[in-house]
Amino acid sequence: MSAEIITIGTELLHGLVRNTNADRILDRLAEIGVEVTYQTTVGDDTARLSDAFRAAGHRARFVITTGGLGPTPDDLTRKVVATVFRRRLVLDETVLAHIRARFKARGIDMPAINEAQALVPRGARVIENPRGTAPGLHFEHQETDFFVLPGVPAEADAMLAQYVIPSIKATAAGPWISRRVVRTIGLSESVLAERLIGVEGEAPDVMIGYLPHSYGLDVTLTVLALDPSWAAEAIRRIERRVIEAAGDHVYGFGRDTMATVLGALLVEQGRTIATAESFTAGGIGANIASVPGASRYFLGGVTAYSNAAKTALLGVKKALIDKHGAVSAEVAEAMAAGARERFGADIAISSTGIAGPDGGTPEKPVGLFFLGLATPEGVHSVHRQVGGEREEIVVRSSALALDFVRRRVAQAPQASRGK
Amino acid sequence: MSAEIITIGTELLHGLVRNTNADRILDRLAEIGVEVTYQTTVGDDTARLSDAFRAAGHRARFVITTGGLGPTPDDLTRKVVATVFRRRLVLDETVLAHIRARFKARGIDMPAINEAQALVPRGARVIENPRGTAPGLHFEHQETDFFVLPGVPAEADAMLAQYVIPSIKATAAGPWISRRVVRTIGLSESVLAERLIGVEGEAPDVMIGYLPHSYGLDVTLTVLALDPSWAAEAIRRIERRVIEAAGDHVYGFGRDTMATVLGALLVEQGRTIATAESFTAGGIGANIASVPGASRYFLGGVTAYSNAAKTALLGVKKALIDKHGAVSAEVAEAMAAGARERFGADIAISSTGIAGPDGGTPEKPVGLFFLGLATPEGVHSVHRQVGGEREEIVVRSSALALDFVRRRVAQAPQASRGK
Repeated sequence: MSAEIITIGTELLHGLVRNTNADRILDRLAEIGVEVTYQTTVGDDTARLSDAFRAAGHRARFVITTGGLGPTPDDLTRKVVATVFRRRLVLDETVLAHIRARFKARGIDMPAINEAQALVPRGARVIENPRGTAPGLHFEHQETDFFVLPGVPAEADAMLAQYVIPSIKATAAGPWISRRVVRTIGLSESVLAERLIGVEGEAPDVMIGYLPHSYGLDVTLTVLALDPSWAAEAIRRIERRVIEAAGDHVYGFGRDTMATVLGALLVEQGRTIATAESFTAGGIGANIASVPGASRYFLGGVTAYSNAAKTALLGVKKALIDKHGAVSAEVAEAMAAGARERFGADIAISSTGIAGPDGGTPEKPVGLFFLGLATPEGVHSVHRQVGGEREEIVVRSSALALDFVRRRVAQAPQASRGK
Repeated sequence: MSAEIITIGTELLHGLVRNTNADRILDRLAEIGVEVTYQTTVGDDTARLSDAFRAAGHRARFVITTGGLGPTPDDLTRKVVATVFRRRLVLDETVLAHIRARFKARGIDMPAINEAQALVPRGARVIENPRGTAPGLHFEHQETDFFVLPGVPAEADAMLAQYVIPSIKATAAGPWISRRVVRTIGLSESVLAERLIGVEGEAPDVMIGYLPHSYGLDVTLTVLALDPSWAAEAIRRIERRVIEAAGDHVYGFGRDTMATVLGALLVEQGRTIATAESFTAGGIGANIASVPGASRYFLGGVTAYSNAAKTALLGVKKALIDKHGAVSAEVAEAMAAGARERFGADIAISSTGIAGPDGGTPEKPVGLFFLGLATPEGVHSVHRQVGGEREEIVVRSSALALDFVRRRVAQAPQASRGK
């Protein structure tokens, strides 16, 4: 019971566009446990597109395609479907009326060229497009269901949610993919893999995967099985071992992010937070604020790129900066204390470091940074070193800053909670 | 002279991982003008992987693959190459010594399992891996060159840059892809397309593409031709028309971003900038600071999420907030003026708005925001409305904030420049 995805469009092969349709369809199929065996991207070329349709039809139970349904001559999908599967294109009056109506609503007469979008291969059902003119198509050929969607991501996504996924869910017979993700930060793949040697034997059907992402390492536990509750139990067994092995490096599961986890902790404890940032330039605050409802605990922050700003806006003494340098534990702590006081927050987190590519020295290389944390219990700091390009350094250190808060907040003494 | 990409790994089909290897290879091939005809992703499955290698070998002049070269049993690429192309696997002592040395450098004895990574299909050249243990492979089969790389993005990327791209560049014979990207903000695809009706006729070989991205619309101009200078001239002709049609919505070309363009303007004029943000929560400052060397012009910013913070840190009068509301032109202007003064900056940009999903009202819906701009010439504000989810709203409004500054700075009177 496998599925295949074909994303169509020469622009997808030109290296500028992220293939968000493929990402989204993979995600949605994973959610309902359907295994995808191939994902192919092909340009606007009749012969290549025909081959892609034929090959997928021979291999898969379900085929989802996006792209090539527009009104211009390089939109070939409709014609290719008609030729490959020997179905004459018929003008569908209902579809035509829908397209005309969409144009009329915008005060425009339908251009003649758009009439082509009302051509439907004989026997295909029309998938309504709530967000655009190009309808989708659903047809069966031999043992395969084809779902043919437009390339505009918002349109494809709406039709996927409203029609394709429910339809596949209703017909699919398993086996199903079950998956669990354990999210960690601060551990390398090889260290964690070494700690997990032998664990695979406890549930051999569970595939353990390691996925490093921009600021951490995800451990994925995947099973292909006919019985989802058996699969869930097997995954739970391995998950317990992963949690033992990773300890407090585990910050969440599934779609948790560092920001949602920290936000939930702050809400639970009724605490507020502010930021004082230098080289992360607002990245920590933006990360905290990315969660809906963050205004309940996030009061704000200062980005003090220049030393003068550190003094003027955060009250960091000029003499302290002169003595220890802007990138130092002392300045990080003073920044956090200053932000905590000025915002009237329970907690303040600060960062000062070297994002590069310039500005590094042998003693303070690019990627070195200090984090300061001010809480009712006092002021602390840590230093860390990360690698990568400028943007990666900022992303990683912002996440490590949230992690520093998370660990401290999770450990906060009961007495200071729920104030 | 076409190329194909095969990215290998079951995890790539599970909807969690962005396929950065495919993105990167597409990008690098586009840079040297090589056309990619298919990009296929396939899981760790011997039969499917074999089919993918066979199909690509029949179709393409160059095939680049990533993944499946690790030491574990689900790493199948080496075996599949040996079987499909009938080349016996031979232990390569030089490769083995290299792998042992890498482990030794980390103070570890090489696990026996890693010996498999030193197996090389007979007649294949070894592509050195400067960042990991798995070497790459380069071999020819009939008329096709295969480049087989590991899946770890940093490793694949290094080998691509050092070996694969130079090798393809040296052997490829054209035709070549030429491409130019015009980057715009604030225009919809349909409006711009309408203004460009008929323009295609002026250089029919130039394919005009529209690529909406997170905060703007890119217009891509692409030609496949044997003579790159002829192609460049055809593209230039259409590019002039696009620039006429888009006017000052054009903010850059190619890899320019709003932040690099604004940064270059600020450097040229010798001006400094500070930010005062509410709902964008540091997104504007992070955007400005994303450019290497931004510390020359970016002094810092305040994120004042709460009204108290707007008063305490930016000097916005409480009475003003009470009278007009935090989301208002008056408060935006006061925030910008406060940041300009406190940071001692030439220019300050502010934002206040509703990021959602909650907090909208009929008068002030989600996505509405005000931008304030304080310059030596005075204080201005504008309001805008954008759509999307919370994160999209923040990304779009941060970019529009930079655009607001860009337009004003580009127009700045000569007298105030170069201070």
